[in-house]
Amino acid sequence: MSASSPILLTPGPLTTALGTREAMLRDWGSWDGEFNRMTRSVCADLLAVAHGQGEYVCVPMQGSGTFSVEAALGTLVPRDGCVLVPSNGAYCARIVKILERMGVAHATLPLGEDEPARAEAIEAAFAREPRITHVAQVHLETSAGLLNPLDEIAAVCARHGKRLIADAMSSFGAVPIDLRGSGIDALVSASGKCLEGVPGMGFVIVRQALLETCARRSPSLALDLHDQWAYMEKTTQWRYTPPTHVVAALRRALDQFVAEGGQPARGARYARNCATLIDGMSALGFVPFLAPAMQSNIIVTFHAPRDPAWRFADLYDAVRAAGYILYPGKLTEVDTFRVGCIGAIDDNDMRGAVAAIGQAVGSLGIKIR
Amino acid sequence: MSASSPILLTPGPLTTALGTREAMLRDWGSWDGEFNRMTRSVCADLLAVAHGQGEYVCVPMQGSGTFSVEAALGTLVPRDGCVLVPSNGAYCARIVKILERMGVAHATLPLGEDEPARAEAIEAAFAREPRITHVAQVHLETSAGLLNPLDEIAAVCARHGKRLIADAMSSFGAVPIDLRGSGIDALVSASGKCLEGVPGMGFVIVRQALLETCARRSPSLALDLHDQWAYMEKTTQWRYTPPTHVVAALRRALDQFVAEGGQPARGARYARNCATLIDGMSALGFVPFLAPAMQSNIIVTFHAPRDPAWRFADLYDAVRAAGYILYPGKLTEVDTFRVGCIGAIDDNDMRGAVAAIGQAVGSLGIKIR
Repeated sequence: MSASSPILLTPGPLTTALGTREAMLRDWGSWDGEFNRMTRSVCADLLAVAHGQGEYVCVPMQGSGTFSVEAALGTLVPRDGCVLVPSNGAYCARIVKILERMGVAHATLPLGEDEPARAEAIEAAFAREPRITHVAQVHLETSAGLLNPLDEIAAVCARHGKRLIADAMSSFGAVPIDLRGSGIDALVSASGKCLEGVPGMGFVIVRQALLETCARRSPSLALDLHDQWAYMEKTTQWRYTPPTHVVAALRRALDQFVAEGGQPARGARYARNCATLIDGMSALGFVPFLAPAMQSNIIVTFHAPRDPAWRFADLYDAVRAAGYILYPGKLTEVDTFRVGCIGAIDDNDMRGAVAAIGQAVGSLGIKIR
Repeated sequence: MSASSPILLTPGPLTTALGTREAMLRDWGSWDGEFNRMTRSVCADLLAVAHGQGEYVCVPMQGSGTFSVEAALGTLVPRDGCVLVPSNGAYCARIVKILERMGVAHATLPLGEDEPARAEAIEAAFAREPRITHVAQVHLETSAGLLNPLDEIAAVCARHGKRLIADAMSSFGAVPIDLRGSGIDALVSASGKCLEGVPGMGFVIVRQALLETCARRSPSLALDLHDQWAYMEKTTQWRYTPPTHVVAALRRALDQFVAEGGQPARGARYARNCATLIDGMSALGFVPFLAPAMQSNIIVTFHAPRDPAWRFADLYDAVRAAGYILYPGKLTEVDTFRVGCIGAIDDNDMRGAVAAIGQAVGSLGIKIR
């Protein structure tokens, strides 16, 4: 792969298959039946990934994944609701920021960036703060690559009658999620993560019976999930101009997802990528930030070397010249950097990336430990 | 052009150049300098189209054009502001709906769907309702294809010290707009209209001195124009995942825009398209809804024939089979349909479309007058 079109080891946008990009070589009319059937089939496939058929509906939304998170919070949480946000990273903090802007009451459960949200701690928060009506849980906190135990959290929410909105941005499609009989009320993700589409749209998979009660609740018209859904039900069309090429790319990416073997096969490929990465980086002397038990297969955070010669920007440039794009750290207290394991890449690509990192570190004269 | 990839005679998404679509054949990292330089060059070119360099900044925003309209209203209008909306179509009505959701006071100036907003009527509204602080003016009302006199309206706003937010969604790039010394405070448009990019992002060109006073005002985090701008100034990056491929396509589309000769050349091509369309359709017996003086060159609304055999869906299907996609009417009181004149198409395409419409009408046995 040439340096002019590097492999993205980033948690979205990521490297897509050529076929996915080629699906963008034609134009689509947004009023046209052919395009609207394509949207419908995309939504049906997304529902099936999480086993949501029957009880849930999938509502696509223009914009980045964050737009869909805000749409879910604004549409599904009543103005007098109170949202518990277990917080172990930047994406949890973003949810708090969204709620602050909306003026919706919330309570945070502060956790370390290497500390998963535990069902018992959430239960204790319910006892301390009876006003809580909803939980907004990030499934996979991309800041560190930490996987929160969504099933346990969903069970405790169901037991206490709390609504659960799960941000599954960088887990959907790769980590198993089964909505059947779960306590999950809404699940949010986007086109350009583990589904390996291009970025430009998100979606919310939500209990239909819940969504039906949420008409005209959203403080934003553009981000009104109910209005988007109701209009699409009535007309088959998106409410406002859809990102037609992004939708076509996601349709193609879902075909490839199914052909690969769905979530189990995708999760297994990412697990191989991740194991290859961690093995190779450990051999170079790099230390992962997270303990193996809570490390997801999606993205790995490594401690920065303590050598004063270390500058992430130098490593980034040297590795980029070799054809790989790394990702900076996003932790507040520890100097780190990240390497993504997702996208249309395999363990050979990961070996190539590790070799490029090893060479760069050598030529930059950085002592790793 | 084969029926499987028809020519879009719709006001966005529209037919793009193959080169624009081919720009989407590579992946881009959103943290990467190369991508962020591309975003910066896109914004610089967009500013130049409206002569906004120096005093204005261009802030891109994920989502459809409506997302950017809502971002401009939510970020630039204070909670205790009052917005006058001269209303002659569906896009004006949408602005009212956005303001209602936000809980921002507003006054509408109701007009016929064939009646342009006049500076004198706006001035009279200022006199009647002194609470008005802002005007939200749709430049080109795509519902009928009606061009509102933005310069006159901007002058009257400047004279009375009212802020003007102009929705230039389907005029930007084709109709002259000169921000220098104008009364326009913000101008909103999107990638997939007269710039001939693909849909998936909008942008707001706004007076920097005004935007600087708007920190933390937006009720939406995702649609906070100030936060988007401030973050981009600080980091060169988009705040949340950008639609990377859409940005790359817009970069290519802007190259073609400049190569064609910029706004004057683009406007001239659309004028030829529009004249060819109206001449041909008139020869078939179709009657345009608007008088020539207020008809834009962007999209033309035609009266539906009075023949009881007329069904737009039948015409749509027959013309689609010939390789052209038409657009339904959007007027509330009159039965109409629309034909767009914009996109990477020329007057030969318009002649082809008219011929296809003529043949379809004949084979459907519809009497036009």
